[in-house]
Amino acid sequence: MRATVGIIGGGPAGLLLARLLHRAGVDCVVLESRARQYVERRQRAGMLEQGTVDALREAGAADRLDTEGLVHHGIELRFDRERHHLDFPVLTGGRTVTIYAQTEIVKDLVALQLADGPPLLFEAAALAVEKPLSGSPVVRFLHEGREQTLSCDWVVGCDGSHGVARDAFPAAAGRTYTHDYPYSWLGVLAEVPPSCEELIYARHERGFALHSMRSPRISRLYLQVPNGTRLLEWPDDRIWDELAARFAVDADWTLRPGPIISKSVTPMRSLVHEPMRHGRLLLAGDAAHIVPPTGAKGLNLAVSDVRLLGGAFAELRATGSTRLLDGYSDLCLRRVWQATRFSDDMTRMLHAQPDGDAFDHRMQLARLRRITASRHAAAELAANYTGLPLPL
Amino acid sequence: MRATVGIIGGGPAGLLLARLLHRAGVDCVVLESRARQYVERRQRAGMLEQGTVDALREAGAADRLDTEGLVHHGIELRFDRERHHLDFPVLTGGRTVTIYAQTEIVKDLVALQLADGPPLLFEAAALAVEKPLSGSPVVRFLHEGREQTLSCDWVVGCDGSHGVARDAFPAAAGRTYTHDYPYSWLGVLAEVPPSCEELIYARHERGFALHSMRSPRISRLYLQVPNGTRLLEWPDDRIWDELAARFAVDADWTLRPGPIISKSVTPMRSLVHEPMRHGRLLLAGDAAHIVPPTGAKGLNLAVSDVRLLGGAFAELRATGSTRLLDGYSDLCLRRVWQATRFSDDMTRMLHAQPDGDAFDHRMQLARLRRITASRHAAAELAANYTGLPLPL
Repeated sequence: MRATVGIIGGGPAGLLLARLLHRAGVDCVVLESRARQYVERRQRAGMLEQGTVDALREAGAADRLDTEGLVHHGIELRFDRERHHLDFPVLTGGRTVTIYAQTEIVKDLVALQLADGPPLLFEAAALAVEKPLSGSPVVRFLHEGREQTLSCDWVVGCDGSHGVARDAFPAAAGRTYTHDYPYSWLGVLAEVPPSCEELIYARHERGFALHSMRSPRISRLYLQVPNGTRLLEWPDDRIWDELAARFAVDADWTLRPGPIISKSVTPMRSLVHEPMRHGRLLLAGDAAHIVPPTGAKGLNLAVSDVRLLGGAFAELRATGSTRLLDGYSDLCLRRVWQATRFSDDMTRMLHAQPDGDAFDHRMQLARLRRITASRHAAAELAANYTGLPLPL
Repeated sequence: MRATVGIIGGGPAGLLLARLLHRAGVDCVVLESRARQYVERRQRAGMLEQGTVDALREAGAADRLDTEGLVHHGIELRFDRERHHLDFPVLTGGRTVTIYAQTEIVKDLVALQLADGPPLLFEAAALAVEKPLSGSPVVRFLHEGREQTLSCDWVVGCDGSHGVARDAFPAAAGRTYTHDYPYSWLGVLAEVPPSCEELIYARHERGFALHSMRSPRISRLYLQVPNGTRLLEWPDDRIWDELAARFAVDADWTLRPGPIISKSVTPMRSLVHEPMRHGRLLLAGDAAHIVPPTGAKGLNLAVSDVRLLGGAFAELRATGSTRLLDGYSDLCLRRVWQATRFSDDMTRMLHAQPDGDAFDHRMQLARLRRITASRHAAAELAANYTGLPLPL
């Protein structure tokens, strides 16, 4: 097979890039290692920055998002049994965020791609990217029981942090920065209307809790748990009891429990790989960077990478210039580091630190209090949460 | 001896409180364990918030400060060999800070006190505060070779973190929160005009450095050094070389060396004691709280404690009400925790972490970059640096 751009990975980053390239007249092929059904059910993020919504609209992939997405005008910070609302439009001059599950984005993009798009191969497992420094890199992949090759002008790795694209960077051609946090998230999906209209970020001595939602009928809830936690330690009743304890406030508020339809434990990690380009191989999304989920930046960063790449390939096709592709890595990384910093700040401020003492605990409370007391501190959080400009 | 208010400690907190009480018609006695000459030479802070300047003016102790104080309109952040100026009046709606050494404040207050003030006893070492829960607490002290007593209606401990006042709180009557940072400051006083007009806070892989000044002829410089550093490891030449390396920028800038007239190593510590009152014993300044010097909050916090106390005693005298004295601890502590948080943030952002890795290093740079890129982040730093409102 041949394509101008070979895209490894059919998650939101790879699929959105394929749409943007399709509309720009750049031919591409998407290789996804999993089956369609698996990809469309993979539970991931659900909070979209305005720029992410804009990108999906530009790609013509926002029809259902515009109907079903829930526009949120803020979040709630909960600590010391008190509730504090941050009003994003007031703090940012009108910006909001939209709740729409990543699984739904993927379904929308898959449907579009299969309807009129360039080839999207499921169960096509990339094995390696070869000759990235040549003018014609090759992706070797396994599909329909046999090894095949995709010859390209460019390869984009959207294959996540365990994918093969990053492996094609020689050790000397990059550096990986990582941080492992000493806690994980137990995430549950529950068939019950959310107990709140907006997301609740709760700091409690027992640990962090997050109340989110996927739709008006599906709640998404998270609990900070120790690393190494096994799901069998957390029967449904224990989960609801613990959530109720961490969300408890002095005001009149009740957490609505309901049937739990999915449970998982996710470790918290930061990772940044520099640079995001090696010859004609480019990385986007989780393949290049991972943020802890506090702050919901992962999907949004992937989309901003892809927006820059879409523009860069469009310019290449229109003018023959690689100027934007040459600047891609530096431009992305500036934003990536800021999102990593924001995610790190949110994570450290809200989670109970296993090795923390009473002083650390009071520092967290002082940071939270300052955000609720200072217009500048609140506006700075809101600016980061709703999304920094692209390019930054 | 007898006094309405017995003040332990003749540093800036105790001396300023004595002035404020004197002007409010409340009689008091100040006990200072050291000799006058020692107190007037003790090198300490030198950055005054606007509120601190205002308090000294209200106390009638700002004549020389108003002539000799250096008004600063900002600070410089230095990292990655770049210089970034933060303009405080622009960021805060007109606020500035003033450079005037604590030793000079002490000299001014001592002179006023000896001229017309209530008794100020030097070499009067408090031994203990007794009966704080009674209506008439007593300070036992050693003076002129014999033990004496000062009977009071109220006792205020301004005797620093190693003083006797805090010892009079039974363990069950309070809690001390502490944090020891894994580095110290090597501070030098040099007889050379400052190499900069405003303070420079420099983050360097080798460690933090601060360029400050005490007057147009005296520079005050600090280097982050490991805990346990001995002065003999740091001959003058090594100090100047290290300062030059940490302040180095790509722009045209040179550090002016000169004769070093004083050197000391200070560990970095946070400490907050809650509450700040036990019966008729009140704590103010370092006796109740210590902040690491990054951010220069120590003296300013002491002055804001004393302002609240001055007002509370004036109200007591005018109306007989202890309302403000009853609210003193809570009101102070709200501000103390915010200053402690700010000092902790500044400290962690600017110092090389001995156990930090490449990721931590990049997080520090991302935080600094954000402050120089975001108006809200810069304004939040400036608001804290120039001083939060009193009461907060």
